[in-house]
Amino acid sequence: MQQISLYDALYSQWAVRHFSDRPVSDEAVQTILDAAIRAPNGGNRQLWRFLVIRNAETKRRLGQWYSDSWTHMIDNMTPEERATQPYRSGGDLGNGMAKVPVLMLVCVEHPNGPPATAHISRGASIYPAVQNLMLAAEALGLGTVITTLHTRFEKEIKEYLGMPANSETAALIPLGYPAEDVRRVRTRRFPVADVTFYDRWGHKKAS
Amino acid sequence: MQQISLYDALYSQWAVRHFSDRPVSDEAVQTILDAAIRAPNGGNRQLWRFLVIRNAETKRRLGQWYSDSWTHMIDNMTPEERATQPYRSGGDLGNGMAKVPVLMLVCVEHPNGPPATAHISRGASIYPAVQNLMLAAEALGLGTVITTLHTRFEKEIKEYLGMPANSETAALIPLGYPAEDVRRVRTRRFPVADVTFYDRWGHKKAS
Repeated sequence: MQQISLYDALYSQWAVRHFSDRPVSDEAVQTILDAAIRAPNGGNRQLWRFLVIRNAETKRRLGQWYSDSWTHMIDNMTPEERATQPYRSGGDLGNGMAKVPVLMLVCVEHPNGPPATAHISRGASIYPAVQNLMLAAEALGLGTVITTLHTRFEKEIKEYLGMPANSETAALIPLGYPAEDVRRVRTRRFPVADVTFYDRWGHKKAS
Repeated sequence: MQQISLYDALYSQWAVRHFSDRPVSDEAVQTILDAAIRAPNGGNRQLWRFLVIRNAETKRRLGQWYSDSWTHMIDNMTPEERATQPYRSGGDLGNGMAKVPVLMLVCVEHPNGPPATAHISRGASIYPAVQNLMLAAEALGLGTVITTLHTRFEKEIKEYLGMPANSETAALIPLGYPAEDVRRVRTRRFPVADVTFYDRWGHKKAS
């Protein structure tokens, strides 16, 4: 991994949806996964499972499911949402998925069956690892984007990939070198002051 | 933020549950939150909300809820689980929460009401920010640990903190300088080979 600083890694992360056909080495994949598994996770149970997909037909099928989900989402948006949200490259991503060098399907396997809770905190033990994965990729000059649209076809995908009933998918992450002709868009964020409260919801000043 | 490398940050992250009483500056909190909001999130909607809690009574109440949840969890574990899982410091954390300099309650606010899905991917747009937050804290020499046990009392906590119905809590993260007398435990992980499949679930070799 290059000696990129943490600060640079966090502030220069961007969503890559167009990739060059430059191959991604197995060594790079191993480096990235080794960083992913350092992430915090509940009880250190390490329920993460990583499916590294290079098979062209499998990538094509996943791309088709992604595209179908993307179309469904766009169809259900208002024109304003369509214009303001950064979804414009989503269609390209689905269509191009077969040619992305690697698809990383990040999964969770529950030894005692699926959890009973529907709380958002179900994701607390997998998405820190997903973020590590993407940051480590960035340090190697590789691009990624976290996607979850495929989960609309969770059942079909699990069957297609031979996933057991006690597993689930958490994120589908294309991995490759960014296409050379894609303009890097700087991350735009509301400032911290807009999303931070102090001691109690709605209080905008530190007490 | 210190010039810690990404690699060092990812590989030296550890769970801190015992803190010194050295104060944490507002500047440090701002630096950490500014790094958190760089994280990827669906449609760049930035539904994250951060509650920065310094009020001693509020911290004490949250610590009580945490302790109650911790006790409930331990009571429901087998002796083997209790011995092998790294929960031993959880009781100390709950008891000491009032004296942790800052509690960060990371929340999500859904403009159109709570989401319909119970899928794990609900967490995809908040836990990358949580991980950024913890990595940025580490770069400042601060310790954190991601906890979700408080969610057992989600309803009570939301009411206590004045949180609206369309919001939810995702993680409660104590923030402070690590206690000096706590031995740092090196992260133990199963190797990548144990948790990685190729092209299809169960395939252990790249094709």
